[in-house]
Amino acid sequence: MEIITTVKNMQTLSGKLHKNRYIGFVPTMGFLHRGHLSLVDRARSMSDIVVVSIFVNPKQFGPSEDIKSYPRDFKHDRRLLEETECDILFYPDVEDLYPQGYSTYVEVEGFDTTLCGARRHRHMRGVATVCTKLFNIVRPQLAVFGEKDYQQVIMIKKMVSDMNLNVEIVTSHTVREDDGLAVSSRNIYLNNGERKDAPVLYKALLIGKRMIETGENDTGNVLEAIREVIEEKKSSRIEYIEIVDKESLKILKRIDRPAVIALAVYFGTTRLIDNILTVPGGISKECSGKC
Amino acid sequence: MEIITTVKNMQTLSGKLHKNRYIGFVPTMGFLHRGHLSLVDRARSMSDIVVVSIFVNPKQFGPSEDIKSYPRDFKHDRRLLEETECDILFYPDVEDLYPQGYSTYVEVEGFDTTLCGARRHRHMRGVATVCTKLFNIVRPQLAVFGEKDYQQVIMIKKMVSDMNLNVEIVTSHTVREDDGLAVSSRNIYLNNGERKDAPVLYKALLIGKRMIETGENDTGNVLEAIREVIEEKKSSRIEYIEIVDKESLKILKRIDRPAVIALAVYFGTTRLIDNILTVPGGISKECSGKC
Repeated sequence: MEIITTVKNMQTLSGKLHKNRYIGFVPTMGFLHRGHLSLVDRARSMSDIVVVSIFVNPKQFGPSEDIKSYPRDFKHDRRLLEETECDILFYPDVEDLYPQGYSTYVEVEGFDTTLCGARRHRHMRGVATVCTKLFNIVRPQLAVFGEKDYQQVIMIKKMVSDMNLNVEIVTSHTVREDDGLAVSSRNIYLNNGERKDAPVLYKALLIGKRMIETGENDTGNVLEAIREVIEEKKSSRIEYIEIVDKESLKILKRIDRPAVIALAVYFGTTRLIDNILTVPGGISKECSGKC
Repeated sequence: MEIITTVKNMQTLSGKLHKNRYIGFVPTMGFLHRGHLSLVDRARSMSDIVVVSIFVNPKQFGPSEDIKSYPRDFKHDRRLLEETECDILFYPDVEDLYPQGYSTYVEVEGFDTTLCGARRHRHMRGVATVCTKLFNIVRPQLAVFGEKDYQQVIMIKKMVSDMNLNVEIVTSHTVREDDGLAVSSRNIYLNNGERKDAPVLYKALLIGKRMIETGENDTGNVLEAIREVIEEKKSSRIEYIEIVDKESLKILKRIDRPAVIALAVYFGTTRLIDNILTVPGGISKECSGKC
């Protein structure tokens, strides 16, 4: 595995590679776990060359957020990637991606009214900006994103389409611990009690999904049931639970189409997100006669 | 000359071409004149393949501006380009570049406080956005812009640097009529009287430049002299005259570094812009002992 630490060197290499090799790209903020590795596997299966970036992007953290304490362990990340079939690790400095006087931003309008976009000031703009920059530097034909960050995936797809970017966006399912907790770099912050409580998120999402798929279409009823289950756990503090259209992410009053239940919940001071796809009437209805 | 009218066809072609040919690109809004043709010549001298786009970009016109009446003559443009050595004319529809629900914008902060950016709402954002899209579609290694739109050139260079775009920005001098009027698609709007008055812009810029290069460094004095000359013409109405740093475009109170005098002036209902570079103390001082 080759490690590249400057934008210039990465651009020189990708400028040659992209002409006759299919580059698959996995952008990450490091502190890698099984979720990231599943994205690398996905890229591997579809590309000639796999590039993984590790960059904790300051532009997607708000002023009161956890960038300073965001977990980092480059040696561990490098070892994990060496054990996968990653070809190139791109590991640039903040000053290299955002030199003094940096002032250009990419914004996909309409993503700051629901879900994380409504709560994390300029988070979505920061994600769109860094992804555009990384795509221009790495020049991948394909990039893989995890569905755990559902709103991010939808926004990146919209941005790629609007901006005519020459990259295909592929998504990969959320990887979970045995007890259902979505794997996340932030799980390391949880103390023992919080770690025991946190799997309630997936349990609650499954309850909501089951309600919708067995006929409940009132958003308020579903949200109330999910909220009740989560609030049984003492260390939890709900930031939001929303049910939105699967494609447009518009909030649904009645669940009359494929939807996503998405939530952000604090356990102690640690903010976790999760989501689940659901189809009113369930799989049997969706697949009627075909599966 | 090949004419391509869809984004998809242009992307298919440029996806092949850019791998082993050096593509030079000239984005235009059509109604071509000698100024545009000088940009095409410049691209020709530096590239294997020259692509010219014609697209009147609605995103860079404000709600009260002249997009509907902006002059268009495709047949004339095509004939002019056929007489040059343009290889590909890209001529897309508005709906193809901005399909329904389009919502992604590129913004270079700090360009809405001086010059045209301060007067034309969201003009600079519209320019940055369409240029990014066109670069992604045409995939040029080089793009040529005219210095008449000075603020635009500086912004595009900043955007390309910030966004790590793989394109070199080349600039070309303003082309003028024999009487000094900068050639522009909008000159066609001028009636006979206005056309006779309009060369005063270049005359006034030269007076300002001469003052600065012979020792005047007080911005107010230079602006007053320029203003006086222009206001002698009855059909003129000044929108702005500003003296700004050549690189940062920050307004200068004292002219103590290389600067640009830039202005926008109405003649009747037609808004014209022009600018001139100037160095305090003049060329002799700048080149002392070296040239």
